[in-house]
Amino acid sequence: MTTLVEQLLNTEAHKSIFESAVRQNLLPVCAAFGSSDQPQPVSFRSTDRVLSTKDSAGVRAQFPQSVAASGNVVLTSAGPSSAAVHGKRVAVLFSGGPAAGGHNVVCGLKRVLGAGNTLFGVTAGPKGLLKGTLFEITDAHVDFILNTGGFDFLGSDRTKIKSDEQFAQVRETCVKHNLDAIVVVGGDDSNTNAAVLAESLFSGVKADGSGVQVIGVPKTIDGDLQIGDLLAISFGFDTATRIYSEMVGNILQDTSSSLKYWHFVKLMGRSASHVALEVALQTKPAMTLISEEVAAKKMSLASIIDGIAQVIVERSHKGMNYGVLLAPEGLIEFIPEMNAMIAELNDVLAHHVTEVAALADDAKPAFIGSKLSADNASLLASLPDYIVNMLLAERDSHGNLQVSLIPTEQLLIDMAKQRVKELDAAVPFAAHKHFLGYEGRCGAPTLFDAAYTYNLGLTAGSLILDGRTGYMATITGLTSGGTPQAIPLAGLLNIERRHGQDEFVIEKALVRMDSPAMQYFVSRRDDWASNDLFASPGPRQFWGPTTHQQPISVALNSGADSLMFQIG
Amino acid sequence: MTTLVEQLLNTEAHKSIFESAVRQNLLPVCAAFGSSDQPQPVSFRSTDRVLSTKDSAGVRAQFPQSVAASGNVVLTSAGPSSAAVHGKRVAVLFSGGPAAGGHNVVCGLKRVLGAGNTLFGVTAGPKGLLKGTLFEITDAHVDFILNTGGFDFLGSDRTKIKSDEQFAQVRETCVKHNLDAIVVVGGDDSNTNAAVLAESLFSGVKADGSGVQVIGVPKTIDGDLQIGDLLAISFGFDTATRIYSEMVGNILQDTSSSLKYWHFVKLMGRSASHVALEVALQTKPAMTLISEEVAAKKMSLASIIDGIAQVIVERSHKGMNYGVLLAPEGLIEFIPEMNAMIAELNDVLAHHVTEVAALADDAKPAFIGSKLSADNASLLASLPDYIVNMLLAERDSHGNLQVSLIPTEQLLIDMAKQRVKELDAAVPFAAHKHFLGYEGRCGAPTLFDAAYTYNLGLTAGSLILDGRTGYMATITGLTSGGTPQAIPLAGLLNIERRHGQDEFVIEKALVRMDSPAMQYFVSRRDDWASNDLFASPGPRQFWGPTTHQQPISVALNSGADSLMFQIG
Repeated sequence: MTTLVEQLLNTEAHKSIFESAVRQNLLPVCAAFGSSDQPQPVSFRSTDRVLSTKDSAGVRAQFPQSVAASGNVVLTSAGPSSAAVHGKRVAVLFSGGPAAGGHNVVCGLKRVLGAGNTLFGVTAGPKGLLKGTLFEITDAHVDFILNTGGFDFLGSDRTKIKSDEQFAQVRETCVKHNLDAIVVVGGDDSNTNAAVLAESLFSGVKADGSGVQVIGVPKTIDGDLQIGDLLAISFGFDTATRIYSEMVGNILQDTSSSLKYWHFVKLMGRSASHVALEVALQTKPAMTLISEEVAAKKMSLASIIDGIAQVIVERSHKGMNYGVLLAPEGLIEFIPEMNAMIAELNDVLAHHVTEVAALADDAKPAFIGSKLSADNASLLASLPDYIVNMLLAERDSHGNLQVSLIPTEQLLIDMAKQRVKELDAAVPFAAHKHFLGYEGRCGAPTLFDAAYTYNLGLTAGSLILDGRTGYMATITGLTSGGTPQAIPLAGLLNIERRHGQDEFVIEKALVRMDSPAMQYFVSRRDDWASNDLFASPGPRQFWGPTTHQQPISVALNSGADSLMFQIG
Repeated sequence: MTTLVEQLLNTEAHKSIFESAVRQNLLPVCAAFGSSDQPQPVSFRSTDRVLSTKDSAGVRAQFPQSVAASGNVVLTSAGPSSAAVHGKRVAVLFSGGPAAGGHNVVCGLKRVLGAGNTLFGVTAGPKGLLKGTLFEITDAHVDFILNTGGFDFLGSDRTKIKSDEQFAQVRETCVKHNLDAIVVVGGDDSNTNAAVLAESLFSGVKADGSGVQVIGVPKTIDGDLQIGDLLAISFGFDTATRIYSEMVGNILQDTSSSLKYWHFVKLMGRSASHVALEVALQTKPAMTLISEEVAAKKMSLASIIDGIAQVIVERSHKGMNYGVLLAPEGLIEFIPEMNAMIAELNDVLAHHVTEVAALADDAKPAFIGSKLSADNASLLASLPDYIVNMLLAERDSHGNLQVSLIPTEQLLIDMAKQRVKELDAAVPFAAHKHFLGYEGRCGAPTLFDAAYTYNLGLTAGSLILDGRTGYMATITGLTSGGTPQAIPLAGLLNIERRHGQDEFVIEKALVRMDSPAMQYFVSRRDDWASNDLFASPGPRQFWGPTTHQQPISVALNSGADSLMFQIG
């Protein structure tokens, strides 16, 4: 065995040269937490911000204990905690799709809870809370997971805790492990779930009548969990968009090197287009579609395609037979006519199950087309076969189309090709397609996400030690040192009627047309379409001069005067 | 206009924060070139290495001037050049697919040629040499392109200079621009072309009877241009594999976070599997297919699928319903039975053009199956429809199947799913597919590629100033400071009979089963399949403690005692 082979064996199991180095990176903390080496918990005081939604009255009726306790008032750091709290038993879990920085939330929690309290990890997400599969997290664990990507230290899943039986299981887990608090790291749905859990576990859980505190931590790479200046962005968004931006920047560089290809890139983010907008701001490609704009302007598929084809033709006439187009994953559902057609299709398919099943595949489109309104039938007929087949064939268990399976990028390529041919048959158009999604969820967190999540963990732990429940931890002032704050979850809830039942939801933050980020994008995009003005943002760096960037859309929307964040 | 908007405008057109920072990075140079700030040209002397191939006699007959001049002897640096050469006019071009570091070759050339000589860039590849579209490269250009990715400074294409007319056009360009030398940055084909050009332009090009020197520089992300210890690796391979390795590492991290998906990743590299092997060594996934091993062991498609399904089932039985499989782009052609079937298919299709064209699409498989030998017919029948359609439908202009269009990753997923069901119907198997290719060609070069290419440029320029022609620039001793050397191109050539004509080729270096890199992989892969031992190599870094890595396969194959390179 040579030295080199020994070195290689030592890189197995999360010990690449990079991982071993990045774990040593010290993280800055908000001044409120004291020193970076030994962060101390803070206590909290009320601000004069009271949150409300259109459904606040209804929510108050359903969350009486939480709302009575919090008054829906935002909390802010009140300086070092005076009382040393000992003996708390806290469980942390990841919920939903992974996002970079989750491990640092755990690290922050463990550090701030200190040796006097116990932190447990819940394995494999909410399901683990039901099953009661917990293990104690040690300092050695923290040293090993610090600054590493993914949720693999605990695992995750998408179980939604809804039924009485599930709530009983959670209570059983709380009793069995004698828990005092649960930290839920998740997106809008998971934080809604945290609010419901907080109310359900508010009191009377354990033999002495005490309850279990529940604190949420805002995660999602989609960036659709934003609450004005209280929550500039969820964690994971920066890392994901930086990873996608490097790939898109590399591809842009490739287009102007090879001089012969278009690349159509679909970007993860099922509802909002924050990811596509951020990647556009980072890389300045020829074209970027924003779902919210398509909906706001009631654009038809044909008009979108025509817009794409026009740019392809104009660039070609200037000698540029190449370019990059970015499209958000959820685009199709935001095109009003597609949405309407899909809704009618769902109805027709549901009402003619046996007739459709009896038909040969190639006979289905005509049959179903004959049942649709004229507009929808003609729209369906205009689509390529593979899209029609998918629209007719695939339904999920609720009878809904699985939109995420639609190869939007291929659809746009094929329809643009046709339209380009109509506009100018001499224009060459060769295109490759990409879907960037899973690559971005579990990378090592950028320094922004790493520092942000570590401080979110410190904040969540402080809230627990301060006896709070039903809050989401947040850090405000990300360009001015950072301040630990807490958002009352019940104050965020709206009520939606789904499947004949009232459901609570935290509204997804979509891209606003009047936001500074969108307006800046709109002001520049024509120039980006006509000229090669792209930039290659490169791979995210952990050492050196370029480490302290924050997302451009966040900087613009928060009125920052710099692209750099400042925590501590 | 706010300050932030001004800052954003300043990042357009290749001026991202990263690009602006990385261009300032100083590059190390081999001791032979003197100081890093002001590198000086070296002269060359013969070594005792004489290159030969099985076709050396035939090549000598076709390349009389080149072989007479070089004797097929490898050259090495003989210390600082004593005579200051002035007035040389040199053109540089990129040929074929882009690779990271091409810009630094240009920078090295410009720096070593100095103010006394003139460097021209040929736009858009070999085609630009035919058209004579050249422009003078300035010091300002060099400052702007240093350490940036892509070939976009010049552009590239795949034109092969073969016909008498094309050679005449090249001569015309040489005369028109009064060129003394041409540097061809390209892969095996382009360096073969450089050898042919060197012979063709050896003398009698210009009015005074003088010739034009031609020097090749070894580029290709595929890594199949390797010449033992003389050329450990082509440039671009390190950057591409590091980019792919980050993505695969992120995906691995995602699999053990989400706990429910397999990801099948196809990796660029049409012939050799060097890329797949290197990414496997970097990330240690559950499974990696190596085309050369499939060919060497004469594996059938069914046996490959069975091997994959076995691992999926075994991991599932251990609770791991997830994993990552890497497959090289060219896999299908290396499966002997597939290769044989495709060859017979090509024949059958060529002989029944009109009959096949007259058939409906769904009638074609049966008709063509009836014309095939029994084995091939049964193999064809075993494949999914979309593969059969592609095998029957798509032929390039030479009547050959376009193998790169076959969705190998989808084929493997679908066939593995079927086989898993046969082995154990209770095993869940949900898979996503990826193709990593274009993302990796044009990223900013790793420090390895950046330093390597800068020194290749210094070497190529030195060879020109030293009056040499028909050589490929190389740097040996990449872990011991680096030594500029030159490989006589004619000494690498073999003769292949293609389309009834003798063609010269530099043999592609495939993965050897007995190479240390392959043997190390084989020694570890069972463990990687049974256990989660993966590593996330993270994004390549340009500052800090992890910058000096070299490819693991290169380190193993060159007997290095460290994963770090050392130039200068």
